[in-house]
Amino acid sequence: MWRVKVVGLGVVALSLSLELLGWLFGRVRHRRPLNKVLFFPSKVACLEHLFSPKTARSCFCPLPHGVETSFSRLLRHLLSASSSLDLCVFSFSNMDLSRAVLLLHQKGVTIRVLGDKDYSAITGSQIGVLRKAGICVRCDSGSVHMHHKFAVVDGRLLITGSLNWTLQAVQSNRENILITDEAELVQPFIEEFHRLWALNDPARLYKQL
Amino acid sequence: MWRVKVVGLGVVALSLSLELLGWLFGRVRHRRPLNKVLFFPSKVACLEHLFSPKTARSCFCPLPHGVETSFSRLLRHLLSASSSLDLCVFSFSNMDLSRAVLLLHQKGVTIRVLGDKDYSAITGSQIGVLRKAGICVRCDSGSVHMHHKFAVVDGRLLITGSLNWTLQAVQSNRENILITDEAELVQPFIEEFHRLWALNDPARLYKQL
Repeated sequence: MWRVKVVGLGVVALSLSLELLGWLFGRVRHRRPLNKVLFFPSKVACLEHLFSPKTARSCFCPLPHGVETSFSRLLRHLLSASSSLDLCVFSFSNMDLSRAVLLLHQKGVTIRVLGDKDYSAITGSQIGVLRKAGICVRCDSGSVHMHHKFAVVDGRLLITGSLNWTLQAVQSNRENILITDEAELVQPFIEEFHRLWALNDPARLYKQL
Repeated sequence: MWRVKVVGLGVVALSLSLELLGWLFGRVRHRRPLNKVLFFPSKVACLEHLFSPKTARSCFCPLPHGVETSFSRLLRHLLSASSSLDLCVFSFSNMDLSRAVLLLHQKGVTIRVLGDKDYSAITGSQIGVLRKAGICVRCDSGSVHMHHKFAVVDGRLLITGSLNWTLQAVQSNRENILITDEAELVQPFIEEFHRLWALNDPARLYKQL
């Protein structure tokens, strides 16, 4: 009888262990991906606390303070970069977005910026500012327009949508931004960035001349 | 001894049943969402088979036949609509995309199109063509630009990205399109469409005059 009891209990213990393992494995495998959507135009609010928490305490600008907006959420995700930021942006003239990229560069985040050849040269474009600050910048020359507007943060978070990095897009247009760490969506953008980055390597382009 | 055996076997059976139920429930709950990314410019190929399989057999146009491209994939997802199609597109002049929308309209799919007030009036815009065909069209008048470029198919599939619905975007620009049925991404776009559609109801706008 004892042998039967022991075998029975053994089977139960094994079965429960398998159940527990399956649950744990399932939790790891099915970790919920981050999926967010932001719509614009964004409300206008003070953003100082995102750039410099110290200065923000003594900020008396007339804009509303402590208000979460679509734009502050976008900036927050961008500023979460700790190792790398790959940008592929058609039009980049927004000063706050430029400030965020410069801040990350100062913090040691490896930044690569791919812009459109025509829009990088227009008045107000921040591409030249980023280049002067020492950020690695390339301009796409193989298409009518390099019309992407995406960022990959730390090789894991994709920020993409209809929104060009301009003041009008943020404050006046109807626009959308998707933020996701779903690998099936992020990975193709990482590969596309690598492809375009290599394609627009000045060394490669000069060789062709 | 028989009682111990029966109890032991009962526990094992219960445990295995729970495991099976958990697996089945997990499969239903964790059905893999559709997540695809398309990049442009697209290769140019004959698309006749997507619109009319009968005509395609006798198509002798000089374009490559039977070739799958980013654009054919985009059209295929669009043409999969069986009940509804909500479009929110800044610039819509691409004749193939217009043909797809008209074909769906002929098949009885309920279509709503929201365009940008300025870009709907430019030469080559298909917005007027769709309106003349009896498709319900509204133009956004409350922003500098209605810059979205998204479609919701049957209230479950989101097609969005940087790509305007123009020939240049499809054949010449660097662009991206995300296709997903991930509810966390689709639902906000459905709600945004409803909001903008109601906001641009002519009856509501006339009342304000």
